[in-house]
Amino acid sequence: MTEPVDTLFVHAHLFTMEGNGVGYQPDGAVAVRGNRIVDAGSTAALAARYDPAERIDATNHALLPGLIDAHMHTPWAVVRGVAQDVAHWMQKGLAPYARHLHRDAALAGTWLALLEALKAGTTTLGDYATPIEGWADIFAAAGVRAVLTPTINALPPGGMAGWSVGDLYPLSDEVGERSIRDAVAFAAEWHGAADGRITVMYGPQGADMLTLEQLRHVKRLAASEGLMLHMHVAQGDREIDQMLKRYGKRTPAFLEQIGYLDEQLLAVHLTEATEDETVAIAYSGAHMVLCSGSIGIIDGIVPPAAEFRTAGGPVALGSDQAAGNNCHNIFNEMKLTALFNKIKFRDPTVMPAWEVLRMATIEGARAIGLGDEIGSIEAGKKADLILVDLSAPNLMPILAEPIRNIVPNLVYGATGREVALVMVDGRILVRGGQVAAIDEAAVRAEVQERAEEVAAAVKRDPVHLDMALLQPMRDGYL
Amino acid sequence: MTEPVDTLFVHAHLFTMEGNGVGYQPDGAVAVRGNRIVDAGSTAALAARYDPAERIDATNHALLPGLIDAHMHTPWAVVRGVAQDVAHWMQKGLAPYARHLHRDAALAGTWLALLEALKAGTTTLGDYATPIEGWADIFAAAGVRAVLTPTINALPPGGMAGWSVGDLYPLSDEVGERSIRDAVAFAAEWHGAADGRITVMYGPQGADMLTLEQLRHVKRLAASEGLMLHMHVAQGDREIDQMLKRYGKRTPAFLEQIGYLDEQLLAVHLTEATEDETVAIAYSGAHMVLCSGSIGIIDGIVPPAAEFRTAGGPVALGSDQAAGNNCHNIFNEMKLTALFNKIKFRDPTVMPAWEVLRMATIEGARAIGLGDEIGSIEAGKKADLILVDLSAPNLMPILAEPIRNIVPNLVYGATGREVALVMVDGRILVRGGQVAAIDEAAVRAEVQERAEEVAAAVKRDPVHLDMALLQPMRDGYL
Repeated sequence: MTEPVDTLFVHAHLFTMEGNGVGYQPDGAVAVRGNRIVDAGSTAALAARYDPAERIDATNHALLPGLIDAHMHTPWAVVRGVAQDVAHWMQKGLAPYARHLHRDAALAGTWLALLEALKAGTTTLGDYATPIEGWADIFAAAGVRAVLTPTINALPPGGMAGWSVGDLYPLSDEVGERSIRDAVAFAAEWHGAADGRITVMYGPQGADMLTLEQLRHVKRLAASEGLMLHMHVAQGDREIDQMLKRYGKRTPAFLEQIGYLDEQLLAVHLTEATEDETVAIAYSGAHMVLCSGSIGIIDGIVPPAAEFRTAGGPVALGSDQAAGNNCHNIFNEMKLTALFNKIKFRDPTVMPAWEVLRMATIEGARAIGLGDEIGSIEAGKKADLILVDLSAPNLMPILAEPIRNIVPNLVYGATGREVALVMVDGRILVRGGQVAAIDEAAVRAEVQERAEEVAAAVKRDPVHLDMALLQPMRDGYL
Repeated sequence: MTEPVDTLFVHAHLFTMEGNGVGYQPDGAVAVRGNRIVDAGSTAALAARYDPAERIDATNHALLPGLIDAHMHTPWAVVRGVAQDVAHWMQKGLAPYARHLHRDAALAGTWLALLEALKAGTTTLGDYATPIEGWADIFAAAGVRAVLTPTINALPPGGMAGWSVGDLYPLSDEVGERSIRDAVAFAAEWHGAADGRITVMYGPQGADMLTLEQLRHVKRLAASEGLMLHMHVAQGDREIDQMLKRYGKRTPAFLEQIGYLDEQLLAVHLTEATEDETVAIAYSGAHMVLCSGSIGIIDGIVPPAAEFRTAGGPVALGSDQAAGNNCHNIFNEMKLTALFNKIKFRDPTVMPAWEVLRMATIEGARAIGLGDEIGSIEAGKKADLILVDLSAPNLMPILAEPIRNIVPNLVYGATGREVALVMVDGRILVRGGQVAAIDEAAVRAEVQERAEEVAAAVKRDPVHLDMALLQPMRDGYL
């Protein structure tokens, strides 16, 4: 007697990520029915047990939980690459573009980032953006899993362009309150939407970007609605400077004082957090997102994720935004995280491949509060799965013993382009490296057109004359 | 009147790398006849001037000089991924594999590394290996450009397996002399071979791995034959420890004393070189190879390439070996080099994209003594060219002004998989991402078979019980 299932993957190098390791199963199989994993084990056992509508031969492929990108700002992908290699990235690089990122451009950026991430095996996108009309619909339409955080801040229109580095920014009661109302309405509409694929967090952008009363208001809302708070914390010297000027305290002490440090908090970056501050945040039960690529490029800093993990806090990985980090690819983040931390501690044993693979899967799922639903391959969890082609030249050979080389090769060898199949919520979105349900050519054309509109507007705006990269442009370096 | 040429690339985003910048030419064109570049300029000008046998439309592609990988040990690709995340990488990770890397396995590794590198846009491979029968033939057959360095050392057979960390290694007069004779014979046969695509350097493996007399002998040979010396210098605490025990001097001072520091030297790594030592080596006229990925993984160190460049020395990039670095991909090396150095100096303006792109092209060409032949796109140089598809989602959009984003996107966004076409010496080796002249499936099958033979031999050899990764294997982390 066999039981009907929708999909049965067989003959995979299966990594369930159960337990404390990677849960390797040779000649592994996974059965999927509807949007759930029904069973995982050996091919021999599952082939005898299930009668699948579709049987997928995963020979020479790694079968893994879908990767989790816990912190993205997808709209910025529409201006990828315009603000690298500069000091004061936001003020001297991105700000003129921020002023002109109109709605259609932002939506095009989200489509582009989603396409890039999905093709590289990311199944859960933790996006953080102004909740413009149409934004969440993209994730619903594309079929991916998304944790959406509508940005809450009290910054007046116009962004940071034209402000001098070191000035205290103005905070507006009106802007902040409207921003909170928009977030509440967004959460009411989208939390649990698209068959539960979409969930919502509240996003006070930074302790420096809302008034004290607004911060308290958002915390009360999150507590009463049971939503997490997704917040940039100690994200740069700019923020610390603002906090010292406004409150006479560094961010972590300020957050502790106003009751923000608890298990409800998803703290992003901690770029400027000291070791003591990091440990205190981890001990509070809060979770962390590490954006290695982004903070490496923008600040030249390796955030204290190793310290946070040593203190017992779970850490997820995030790609941040493509105007800084330049890509949305969790394979990239895994590799950079492992390497940056080896360099930080001058120790090749720090952050081994298996640890960063856990951060991209089960540990990341726990950090964003979805540890019971995704992040590992076990019966009852959502069917978010990827197949990685291990016969790509850069991942060959495949060795089982005495040392199994698959996990190191996935972390240190893969580019993300080896992802052959992506399943989200039981549905196959990418097959043979191609995205079935998205018209890639249309996305590309739209992105190019909107990006050119934004760039043209920036060029017309005298604010752009303050951009740091104009000099290298003139010198023929770009 | 138009002039016949073999190939005319048109409508490219052309980066000639001439002058001090990147030599950008919008709507650019390049004409190729035989194995040489005939002309480079605007499409309008060249289309009027030349009548090509083949016209290649490079719309939405970047056209760049082929990338240069100045330091590889290709045979190790056959055991990719078996020795990451360990302290004492050579002794506790790789040594048992080194004992069993038989000839066919080594050749399979070379084919694999070559395939990986070529598909990622590397046109010049600076390989460094024991000159076994068949090694150089692979580069000749594949059509790539190669700078081959037959390894010269005096280490007795059996490699480093079983030696204790800290022991002085034995050096054998007989082994060293045979090694020198083999290198001389190799250079006589291969320097200038394959229509000049293959050149040779002499490769004293390290100051710690030959006797003093052998080092002097190799230097005399190189000087009389006009070949460069390609040498690991201050490559790790292991080497420095050996030098102090044997000569009471650190490597740079020792090399200065024996006359090795001059423009003939291509110094690899400098991992343990102090700033003073680095500057002294650069001032001597010597050149450097920086292997960011490899040294990052193996040692957790960022070598002093920024210091070397500030002192005026040219630096090339190298991927080293896939048993450590895990990949042979100069896009990976460009990105890691830029990011690691930003982190090292905690400054996002250090090693901007354009500088690392120069290290991968014209500066790298100068570092390996081929600056007059390759590394930039100008009339008279060898036709080593690549096209990179800028319409890949991770490289979109393409913006021209006010900030041109192509170079940052190539360095921080590309994975190497976007390389659409590779031409070496006027011949197209990769087209549509596919390698024409190499049977990839056959290479993959051979690699897998040989790798399994090596792994099986390692498993039978009790020396393998000393490997650091056995514990994580037992713990379910691999």
